Amino acid sequence: MRPVLSLSLCLLLCFALGLACVLLACLWSSRFRGGFQWDGSGLEFNWHPVLMTSGLVVMYGYASVVYRVPLTWGRSKLPWKLLHSGLMLLALLLSVVGLCAVFDVHNKNNIPNLYSLHSWVGLSAVLLFAVQWVAGFAGFLLPCSPVSFRKLLKPLHVWLGGSILSLSIAACVSGINEKLIFVLKGDNHTQPYSKLPPEALFANSLGVVIVAFGLVVLRILTNKKWQRPDPQAQDAAYTPLNQEEND
Amino acid sequence: MRPVLSLSLCLLLCFALGLACVLLACLWSSRFRGGFQWDGSGLEFNWHPVLMTSGLVVMYGYASVVYRVPLTWGRSKLPWKLLHSGLMLLALLLSVVGLCAVFDVHNKNNIPNLYSLHSWVGLSAVLLFAVQWVAGFAGFLLPCSPVSFRKLLKPLHVWLGGSILSLSIAACVSGINEKLIFVLKGDNHTQPYSKLPPEALFANSLGVVIVAFGLVVLRILTNKKWQRPDPQAQDAAYTPLNQEEND
Repeated sequence: MRPVLSLSLCLLLCFALGLACVLLACLWSSRFRGGFQWDGSGLEFNWHPVLMTSGLVVMYGYASVVYRVPLTWGRSKLPWKLLHSGLMLLALLLSVVGLCAVFDVHNKNNIPNLYSLHSWVGLSAVLLFAVQWVAGFAGFLLPCSPVSFRKLLKPLHVWLGGSILSLSIAACVSGINEKLIFVLKGDNHTQPYSKLPPEALFANSLGVVIVAFGLVVLRILTNKKWQRPDPQAQDAAYTPLNQEEND
Repeated sequence: MRPVLSLSLCLLLCFALGLACVLLACLWSSRFRGGFQWDGSGLEFNWHPVLMTSGLVVMYGYASVVYRVPLTWGRSKLPWKLLHSGLMLLALLLSVVGLCAVFDVHNKNNIPNLYSLHSWVGLSAVLLFAVQWVAGFAGFLLPCSPVSFRKLLKPLHVWLGGSILSLSIAACVSGINEKLIFVLKGDNHTQPYSKLPPEALFANSLGVVIVAFGLVVLRILTNKKWQRPDPQAQDAAYTPLNQEEND
């Protein structure tokens, strides 16, 4: 199969899996957990899985593959840098609002914050993401950024980008698992998690789709044949904003 | 810093973090969970975190960075291929015994198997690992393997290698989280998980060290400057066993 065709199919799969993640997270919160409010109740908590999945996983994944979209090739890299940076900022904001939801619910109900490994990993992912965004903006978009800093930053940016996605997936898997243990206890005539009632099957499937999405994003990012083929790409990555090519 | 020096420091860090993972997992099971037996009790379960951490994370990580050890450069790649394959097989066997421990405990105590998202992700990681090992052996070590198959396999092998490590970390994080929720319920005069008693702090720290180990391994694998510099390396990766260089 030609590289561009297989890449396009992979990008389509990535796009579809991302949509499925958001849809399944919304349906879990609305159909099984009672819907959405911002009132300090469990209904406010329901924003947490939706916003973390949408921001920290899906929007983050979409933003990370921007440079791999063939439509963006052969033109100036600057608009796509701005799109990459903008989508990443949106992803970060969604994640932060998702964190606010869970902190607010905990604080209003006297539930301790940040005791579980899930919360430690999830918060680390968001903090690393914030550091990555600031460093990326300073290094690749600010005109005053020195070339030596860009050269140092590039491989770290690539490595940390994949690492944050891996941490996000670990946080989602542990978070879904934790929530199902907490709510599916088998009391009030409901089936426990261990009997795999419909909600358990549904939310586990959300976890599987999130994992599949993450693996497809990593596949797109790691395939050297699918990198932006623009001969200026290597230089452009280190070119300050005011020296960017404008063809 | 010179590439070989920074690589060596990173490899040392990787080695130390791996040892710390195994040590902390052993201490969690022995000091906090009562030690080890193979009798169908909770003491048999204690093998599960130790063996999965040792096999699916640490030995897997060590095996994956074999080609990055500078001592192995400039010589025939074949012994290091065999070491990579042998360590991976050991990692797979440790993981399978770790799975046997948990299935055995569940079956003897009428606890359902494979209902949690943790178990789905963990089992998927081990199954993908088995497929990866068989395909890698067939493609890169069997003399009869066609060159076209090796060329097709190489990028998939690299991508799936990192993906399995990411899944393993997600499985470990969700598994530690799940176990602490199950055992730290705050009954029998013990503190609940939410109060972060010493065991919770200890096992959460194990999770953090596992995550740190995974990120260091990914750093070593993704840095292009740290790849085996042997000019024959690219060809050797596709060279059948009986045509391997013997310098």
